[in-house]
Amino acid sequence: MERCALGLIGWGTVGGGVVDILTRDAALFRERCGLDLYLKTIVTRTPARDRGQKPASATITDRVDVLLNDPDIRTVIHLVGGTTAAKDLCVACLKAGKHIVTANKALLAEHGDELFALAAKHQVTIAFEAAVAGGIPIIAALRDGLVANRIEGIYAILNGTCNYILTRMTEDGKDYGAALTEAQELGYAEADPTLDVNGTDTAHKLAILARIAFHGRIPLAELRCEGIDKLTAQDIESARTMGACIKLLAVAKPSTRGLELRVAPTLIPIDHPLASVNKNYNGIYVHGSAAGPTLLVGQGAGALPTASAVLADVVDVCTGRYLATASRFQFFTSAHAVPLLPESDEVTSSYARFIVADKPGVLAGITGLLSKQGVSVLNIHQGTPNQSGQALIEVSTHPLKSADFFAAIHAIDQSGLTLKPTVTLRRL
Amino acid sequence: MERCALGLIGWGTVGGGVVDILTRDAALFRERCGLDLYLKTIVTRTPARDRGQKPASATITDRVDVLLNDPDIRTVIHLVGGTTAAKDLCVACLKAGKHIVTANKALLAEHGDELFALAAKHQVTIAFEAAVAGGIPIIAALRDGLVANRIEGIYAILNGTCNYILTRMTEDGKDYGAALTEAQELGYAEADPTLDVNGTDTAHKLAILARIAFHGRIPLAELRCEGIDKLTAQDIESARTMGACIKLLAVAKPSTRGLELRVAPTLIPIDHPLASVNKNYNGIYVHGSAAGPTLLVGQGAGALPTASAVLADVVDVCTGRYLATASRFQFFTSAHAVPLLPESDEVTSSYARFIVADKPGVLAGITGLLSKQGVSVLNIHQGTPNQSGQALIEVSTHPLKSADFFAAIHAIDQSGLTLKPTVTLRRL
Repeated sequence: MERCALGLIGWGTVGGGVVDILTRDAALFRERCGLDLYLKTIVTRTPARDRGQKPASATITDRVDVLLNDPDIRTVIHLVGGTTAAKDLCVACLKAGKHIVTANKALLAEHGDELFALAAKHQVTIAFEAAVAGGIPIIAALRDGLVANRIEGIYAILNGTCNYILTRMTEDGKDYGAALTEAQELGYAEADPTLDVNGTDTAHKLAILARIAFHGRIPLAELRCEGIDKLTAQDIESARTMGACIKLLAVAKPSTRGLELRVAPTLIPIDHPLASVNKNYNGIYVHGSAAGPTLLVGQGAGALPTASAVLADVVDVCTGRYLATASRFQFFTSAHAVPLLPESDEVTSSYARFIVADKPGVLAGITGLLSKQGVSVLNIHQGTPNQSGQALIEVSTHPLKSADFFAAIHAIDQSGLTLKPTVTLRRL
Repeated sequence: MERCALGLIGWGTVGGGVVDILTRDAALFRERCGLDLYLKTIVTRTPARDRGQKPASATITDRVDVLLNDPDIRTVIHLVGGTTAAKDLCVACLKAGKHIVTANKALLAEHGDELFALAAKHQVTIAFEAAVAGGIPIIAALRDGLVANRIEGIYAILNGTCNYILTRMTEDGKDYGAALTEAQELGYAEADPTLDVNGTDTAHKLAILARIAFHGRIPLAELRCEGIDKLTAQDIESARTMGACIKLLAVAKPSTRGLELRVAPTLIPIDHPLASVNKNYNGIYVHGSAAGPTLLVGQGAGALPTASAVLADVVDVCTGRYLATASRFQFFTSAHAVPLLPESDEVTSSYARFIVADKPGVLAGITGLLSKQGVSVLNIHQGTPNQSGQALIEVSTHPLKSADFFAAIHAIDQSGLTLKPTVTLRRL
């Protein structure tokens, strides 16, 4: 039985999950894969805090050098948030010849190039299954399970906070603020949810998935990202009218002219498999050239699901398999930057909501301008006007170039046919 | 760039898929993981047959010794059906020191113990991602992705033929025979579909999943297996009445007294994620102690999806990772037999359809006998009687011991309250 001493930096929610599993289920790893995993050193800024956990045999310290200078510890579980101290600690571990297992997606999305190169230089690895979609083994599925596939598209719900908020807005007609408050009360949203609701967290995860799928560097700054924080109860209601629901969708779709890569609230037809990925669940829908469509759904966050992924990586590292992966798979250190498609060249379905006066000729005027700009209508709905004589005309389109779609919307808004600026959304 | 010579035995549907991918997408493996994979020798009983494929550089022969005696070929893709010649060929390859990648679930379910032991003896491996659920990387997910989880339950749709037939029976009210004929015409069912529709194929796959999840030998002969070939249009209609649909469900659920392991047509509530796994798709729903519920959905069969899994294994073998896996993971060679739970001890929800005369006291009599035997009713439905005065009373139960449920059904059928033997089904 091989003893594997592990270091842990960061004893927060996910760290607590790792301690829990290694305390309760260490036998599992011995029985299953012959590894005797144990936490030897835990580095935390608050070593004295009582967390109600007693990791047997672990030294608990606020001094990272205890861990760095211990040759017995070959693998460090890195659960430090942010990109400043987190990066310094990661660099220090790599330079000390430690393998890193991390859940920090921002760190990898922003500094992955530098960190992967540094790891290669020191003949160690950075494993990051936990960085995307928590307990769902999507990194391994994309990298290994689908290795024989050209990836034709990734469509993913990668943020449980946003998905919970959108589900509650959809189920109960709650507005965004009320749904966010509920999510915070239930622990599905943080006190400061900014990076979740503005799409940044999803964008980081998408950049990591795209790096694997398209084996190259992803220029994060060019990734278009829109959050859910401006969505209204009317948007949700409109989606329903159009036979859809709204999800914060991460999209990566290659074309000969570049990779379409974006995060945006998107109408998903209710019969699409992603439409039933609700509450705090994550879902990833991947089109492979050989496997066809594959869907993975599960818990994308939380102490135990994320710790599940962390420890899967620990096993991969401790068995030596991950070094074989990292030394061969090009995306870790590829110099090739994947070119992104400009937004205007994207070909996608869209949705528009026109607010118009209820009078003759308006519908004909709008459909005429859409047609003139080459917008092909998939479905259209006009509701009963309200008491002030305003009516909604809602349109879903067949796929077309975004530039053409926005030109049509601009022409309509300029024509005087609409009473307010037209609201648009993507549609899957 | 490492050149990897591959052997292929069996050039049928899946073999054709492998040839297709290696012909068209060999660059993918070079770019992604630095492997130059090529087919060096193809062994087939019909080397002269024109398959419209030209695998560059491959010798095509009906002599397996060409492959066995070639030290250059370290990895053999084994796509031979059945368990007789398939076993002999597998044994010959292992003895010749070749790694095996196979899609043959029957071979592994029936002779896995012997073959895994032989592989270990010769320091080679048997990879089998393609044996279960085609293009869905469930073997890797269960073995590696969820390694930190005690598996609390596996609920899976593992046979695309059955799922297609059941979907068509549900969508169009077709009876079993008509749906089977349609499936055969569309290529979703074989000319002789026996092993699919009687549940044997699903049982083989379930045995393989259980072996990994519960790391021990699975006594295949004790695995309870029921097919879909006796289902009627009435069963499908009844399921709908009860807010459910019928799937051929593979279940593995551990308890302190043994592993519940069975294949049976099962009512799935329509809001359960598996209920929307339709057509020829496969779906696997796994409850892990840490990850929580995870669902994987995709193409469970077909040339390219299965070849996708075969080539994922080839990469795993050629990178050396799979040898690290096979030499460590206990389930490959475990001497421990997983004890199965007898059917009478299973605790499960059930469904019963009573055919009764439309007269006073019958409903009270049935509910009284159910109650007397401790059967707790989840929901109940009595339809309008037909012209001969026969009525259906349909009942779903809360989970209870199968022995108690069947005792209640026996008591009711003996009581004279029912006009025909009562039909029962499992319910998720």
